[in-house]
Amino acid sequence: MSGTGHFADRLAAAVEAKGSPLCIGLDPDPALMPEGVGVVEFCRGIVDAVADVAVVVKPQSAFFEAQGPTGWAALAEVCEYARSAGLLVLADAKRGDVPSTARAYAAAFAALADAVTVNPYLGYDSLEPFFSRDGLGVFVVVKTSNPSSVDVQDVELADGRPLWQHVAGLVDLWGADHVGESGLSSVGAVVGATFPREVAEARRLMPRAVLLLPGVGAQGGRTEDLAEAFSVGPAAALPSASRSVLYADRGAHWQEAAAAEAARLADELRAVAVAG
Amino acid sequence: MSGTGHFADRLAAAVEAKGSPLCIGLDPDPALMPEGVGVVEFCRGIVDAVADVAVVVKPQSAFFEAQGPTGWAALAEVCEYARSAGLLVLADAKRGDVPSTARAYAAAFAALADAVTVNPYLGYDSLEPFFSRDGLGVFVVVKTSNPSSVDVQDVELADGRPLWQHVAGLVDLWGADHVGESGLSSVGAVVGATFPREVAEARRLMPRAVLLLPGVGAQGGRTEDLAEAFSVGPAAALPSASRSVLYADRGAHWQEAAAAEAARLADELRAVAVAG
Repeated sequence: MSGTGHFADRLAAAVEAKGSPLCIGLDPDPALMPEGVGVVEFCRGIVDAVADVAVVVKPQSAFFEAQGPTGWAALAEVCEYARSAGLLVLADAKRGDVPSTARAYAAAFAALADAVTVNPYLGYDSLEPFFSRDGLGVFVVVKTSNPSSVDVQDVELADGRPLWQHVAGLVDLWGADHVGESGLSSVGAVVGATFPREVAEARRLMPRAVLLLPGVGAQGGRTEDLAEAFSVGPAAALPSASRSVLYADRGAHWQEAAAAEAARLADELRAVAVAG
Repeated sequence: MSGTGHFADRLAAAVEAKGSPLCIGLDPDPALMPEGVGVVEFCRGIVDAVADVAVVVKPQSAFFEAQGPTGWAALAEVCEYARSAGLLVLADAKRGDVPSTARAYAAAFAALADAVTVNPYLGYDSLEPFFSRDGLGVFVVVKTSNPSSVDVQDVELADGRPLWQHVAGLVDLWGADHVGESGLSSVGAVVGATFPREVAEARRLMPRAVLLLPGVGAQGGRTEDLAEAFSVGPAAALPSASRSVLYADRGAHWQEAAAAEAARLADELRAVAVAG
């Protein structure tokens, strides 16, 4: 279950302790995983490989759900294992539904993880059940890393802005009542690392939000383009890599290769986050 | 797993056979369920109660996920039971993620259900993995039944329309390649029954989409306001009730009360859908 204490404050302490704001996505895809290695075994191996250099792991719910009825138990086991290894756990679930349903989702993910990603399309009352959970971090999807994110997120509004900037304004407003001692809110935002200009603009629009920046590595996001995200502090952004770390080597050396790639990214981010 | 054959054609055949387009949402909330009745037992009981008059049941994934590791197995069992009772199963999951993740979600839900709800905020490439699954119906969230749906869905665009109408246009476009012999597309849309004017406008913007209309009953949607949704055929809309049926009686007579309320709604809809 979500730990005690304000999420962003716990994150800030973890970044200070480890010196780098790295997040590793756990996307266990049987088509890419080393042969003969199961989902839980693989994820535990990745956790062991990255625990010294990463602050957060981000299990992607979809890959566990795709395992059928055993998937949710696997997700719970991996979350528990990562937390016992001293990592914060961010469940990447992108949920969003009407209030009575949102309360059920918030309960489901608060039981598993320290934080969760959510989708803003249904508005405030669909996310409030997450915001009001003590100790739970919430990352609202604002501008995503995929090419088709333009279809809806970049539609031009009557005031000339793209839609995602309106959503960023809502996230800043929604997060105002949830700012911790670190100066950061437990209501954060997801902004694709593949769009550096949007990352910089998101920083200006949401000065108190932790920015989760997925898409580093395989999707093309580069750490050196993310410096502005850290302009309000070294824990104010969480660049996240998944496939480039998990599948750095798809044979016998998968664990060593993942550890090496995570360490390399952590070093890069240490420079970026401190300079930011 | 999703049945064989075009989803909208199977739906049209089911509506013709039963004479009414009723969908019943399965939202098993332990706080509202009769005492001593488990989630699977409750859902099976509701399936038995409504199977004669409903064409679709819509299990809400959140309430199963809130059960922890046993929840997904319960969801699979309920889906299987409903299908063996001759009902189509629509998994209400509102998923949406980047393409590699969307493929995992599409696999997860195609293994469970005949159709699934998805969220459009991430654009085409996040939904294409669902659209391209043979036999799977896909309902894209367009305008939801909750009060805060205005926060994002009703934002005014540069062309003067609210955002949801832009999304409706995308759904019509995306669904064009997936039209069955019934004239209806396997790419449908979710439009809250609580907004009758928007339902009528959605019908005009998406003439080939099956409109899933949640919010009948407890949320305030009234069947008599939904006639325009059926202007292109009796299977062109699926009004859905959840709490008003499931919790019609919260004591010993829950099953009889649910059956009676579902039969009453089916009668109302028979008139509306034929007149539409």
